[in-house]
Amino acid sequence: MPKLDADPEMPLDPSSLDPADWDAFRRLAHSALDDAIDYVRDVRRRPVWQALPEDVKQRLNEPLPAVPQGIENTYRNFRELVLPYATGNIHPRFWGWVHGTGLTTGIISEMLAAAMNSNCGGRDHGALYVERKVVDWCRQIVGYPDSASGLMVSGTSMGTLIGLAVARNAATGGSVRAGGVAKTCNSFVTYASSEAHSSLARALELLGLGHNSLHRIVVDDSFAINPVALRQAIHEDRRAGRRPFCVVGCAGTVNTGAIDNLTMLTEICESEKLWFHVDAAFAGLCALRGSLAGLVQGIERSDSVSFDFHKWMYIQYDAGCVLVRDGRLHKNTFATRPDYLQHWERGLAGGGEWFTDFGPELSRGFRALKVWFALKTYGTEKFGEMIEKNIQQARYLAQLVKSNPMLELLAPPTLNIVCFRYRGFQLENEELDSLNRDIVAELQIRGIAAPSTTCIHGKLSIRVAITNHRSRREDFDLLVNSVIMLAKERCC
Amino acid sequence: MPKLDADPEMPLDPSSLDPADWDAFRRLAHSALDDAIDYVRDVRRRPVWQALPEDVKQRLNEPLPAVPQGIENTYRNFRELVLPYATGNIHPRFWGWVHGTGLTTGIISEMLAAAMNSNCGGRDHGALYVERKVVDWCRQIVGYPDSASGLMVSGTSMGTLIGLAVARNAATGGSVRAGGVAKTCNSFVTYASSEAHSSLARALELLGLGHNSLHRIVVDDSFAINPVALRQAIHEDRRAGRRPFCVVGCAGTVNTGAIDNLTMLTEICESEKLWFHVDAAFAGLCALRGSLAGLVQGIERSDSVSFDFHKWMYIQYDAGCVLVRDGRLHKNTFATRPDYLQHWERGLAGGGEWFTDFGPELSRGFRALKVWFALKTYGTEKFGEMIEKNIQQARYLAQLVKSNPMLELLAPPTLNIVCFRYRGFQLENEELDSLNRDIVAELQIRGIAAPSTTCIHGKLSIRVAITNHRSRREDFDLLVNSVIMLAKERCC
Repeated sequence: MPKLDADPEMPLDPSSLDPADWDAFRRLAHSALDDAIDYVRDVRRRPVWQALPEDVKQRLNEPLPAVPQGIENTYRNFRELVLPYATGNIHPRFWGWVHGTGLTTGIISEMLAAAMNSNCGGRDHGALYVERKVVDWCRQIVGYPDSASGLMVSGTSMGTLIGLAVARNAATGGSVRAGGVAKTCNSFVTYASSEAHSSLARALELLGLGHNSLHRIVVDDSFAINPVALRQAIHEDRRAGRRPFCVVGCAGTVNTGAIDNLTMLTEICESEKLWFHVDAAFAGLCALRGSLAGLVQGIERSDSVSFDFHKWMYIQYDAGCVLVRDGRLHKNTFATRPDYLQHWERGLAGGGEWFTDFGPELSRGFRALKVWFALKTYGTEKFGEMIEKNIQQARYLAQLVKSNPMLELLAPPTLNIVCFRYRGFQLENEELDSLNRDIVAELQIRGIAAPSTTCIHGKLSIRVAITNHRSRREDFDLLVNSVIMLAKERCC
Repeated sequence: MPKLDADPEMPLDPSSLDPADWDAFRRLAHSALDDAIDYVRDVRRRPVWQALPEDVKQRLNEPLPAVPQGIENTYRNFRELVLPYATGNIHPRFWGWVHGTGLTTGIISEMLAAAMNSNCGGRDHGALYVERKVVDWCRQIVGYPDSASGLMVSGTSMGTLIGLAVARNAATGGSVRAGGVAKTCNSFVTYASSEAHSSLARALELLGLGHNSLHRIVVDDSFAINPVALRQAIHEDRRAGRRPFCVVGCAGTVNTGAIDNLTMLTEICESEKLWFHVDAAFAGLCALRGSLAGLVQGIERSDSVSFDFHKWMYIQYDAGCVLVRDGRLHKNTFATRPDYLQHWERGLAGGGEWFTDFGPELSRGFRALKVWFALKTYGTEKFGEMIEKNIQQARYLAQLVKSNPMLELLAPPTLNIVCFRYRGFQLENEELDSLNRDIVAELQIRGIAAPSTTCIHGKLSIRVAITNHRSRREDFDLLVNSVIMLAKERCC
């Protein structure tokens, strides 16, 4: 046996990239950690957002560093040029797009994941057991059977891409992998409501099916898909010689938070023999709360589903999950094992399933750790409470809007999204669009709050999407008062 | 103006997910940070890898947590059940597959990125300026013009997918996005050497072109593509009515580290009017070292290129980059702006280009920060030195192999990969395969070293891929001695 025992005493290689002075490195790391914790703890004292000043932009625009600047100098630059200019979503009054808040557990779990530096593509090591467990917990949350498979992904855009790739592969009996779309998927049609997210069309583009193959179905007054119109479209397409193959249900539309009737969509897909994928980006997690689970009933009967942890579970970017009811179909879509990736009985190349057989990535970071930390630290019930709180806050804000004659509610808040505008007096629609756009920009620029905007029935809407565990009712009072104030500044 | 000044004094919401006791949280975080730093500093004292004991697997297999376990308990579980069982690639004697080592700067930058929780899909905030700068630095490293665009990705698998998606879109004048592959890309053919990575075929599958559309070209003795055979194949395909559209060059093959003649491939692609993508997963970074840059000459004339930071720049998983010479073609492949993602002149929805217009993801984490930290801390010259060191170590190991009659070098080490085997005496090829497979498994199981295996000319090979800044020459001596020892254990 070689002298392994003596080996640990081998001096550290001075030519490696490890710190020459570990103590100095440790001091800096602790100081940076204190800054990071203070930064989150004191977020309410700062503006929600602030633009980068021109001189900061210029200083960030530095030449490619050839010689070492050292960690201390780099950290100083970060602290001055980057840290003050975050997206803003950790702030209690950030409600733009659908951005989650982040959790303090994420600071710890991300630094630990960095120390381990695991590659979760495959092989046999702890990180894979953690990711398998997280996927298994997700399977239970959604209500899928034991035979389901899953994968942590960067978010629902990637999850939808994977879900539809499995659907496409299943519909062609696997022949699309070799033969391509031209030989196997001609005239395939996918269905979703007119409110479905743009990532769906982008997934169809990437898969080579083209976005023209997406048939958008009208919605009802609550912005949920009209199932009668869906059935009609399927039948018409069949009569015209096209090949319906997939329906995508929305559990939480981006504009208004509408949820399609998933049970009805399941039944249509079963009777029409179509794949049923659910885009559950944020609202899928309503399953965590008994009183809300009914909203997403039927999700457990879908063929695949994708959702995000970084939205309504408040976990750090990026973190999502895709689940496939039939794990074999999932694996058949991606598995490839060349000589250099063989699986063995023993050693590092052993273990259970490799995640690289379930998605397009080979190198994969340990993003499961932050979800594992959060689920254990808080438990599902606590997340359910937070989701319920955000929904109640949306109702509270909707009431504030309805009780103010200067404001107009543009869509009923089915969930956690409120769309409204300042309606003013004697202003044309175009003037109102411009005024409300200005109001939102000023809210952001002054650092008061960060809603985003969308368009509802042709009207520019202030859009407040609440996936924020730090928001309080007082924050919504402040929002409404500020909207009125900014409108008056402009109209008087 | 609403009383914003009074607002910072609003008490923290006790129902939020923030710590009830910030001081306790801070103590735990500092203690975890010390553990993380010790873990990396003392890596040489531990086995390279160890399998998870059965009881650890069972304890990780816990029910979905409903009630809070708290951060202290969660961290204790992590420390006991996860931390000791890493992939092993931070160890000085891990040389399996192509796994990078990780950098201590990554521990700091990942915890800071978690505190900011930026979403790098778009909008106007500091993280985007950092990512734009990192992409710009990469553009300079590769030698692309100012008009090039780029995106940080999870790795080269995703980078290749994006590069080929741009190629496909360009070749169809953009019509593939709406019409799909069936109407626009029939009989498209992509070319790469027989040694090209499996992620290429997977990208073609996902894009709907099918892996049959990949024509693999023979290699020469150094495992680089044979350009004459490539030209012949293109001409034959054209005569047969097929439509050549893309050539993928290898800068560092996975088996042996071979580099195609990129200048020659550029010239073929220019004269044949084909897209030229380079899979530069690890060897692209040879451009960082003056004495090595000649190996990848021609890369600057390609149409798109993808490479990883988490391989030969030792940065934490996952981190790669894709660059496209013509930024407009890149953007045209992905850009979509529905109502809820409109770009503005002012406020948070302003700023320059949004990364979501250059790839399939909308939610994107701040993975650029760890690259920015590393490039500034160490500078490109230091990374160039490390790359050179690893190449010299490969030559050193090859010499050790050649000077030992019991060992057989299976491929000339062009770069940082050495493929060899124990050749023994009077053993059949099949017995040798089994013996060498056993040797590698034992090296891993005993925690001595972690090479992987591949197949070279039908022979199972011990494969040592050196992308490790912690390795020393003594580590390779130990490897060779251990291989001989383990072989003797089995043969005597």
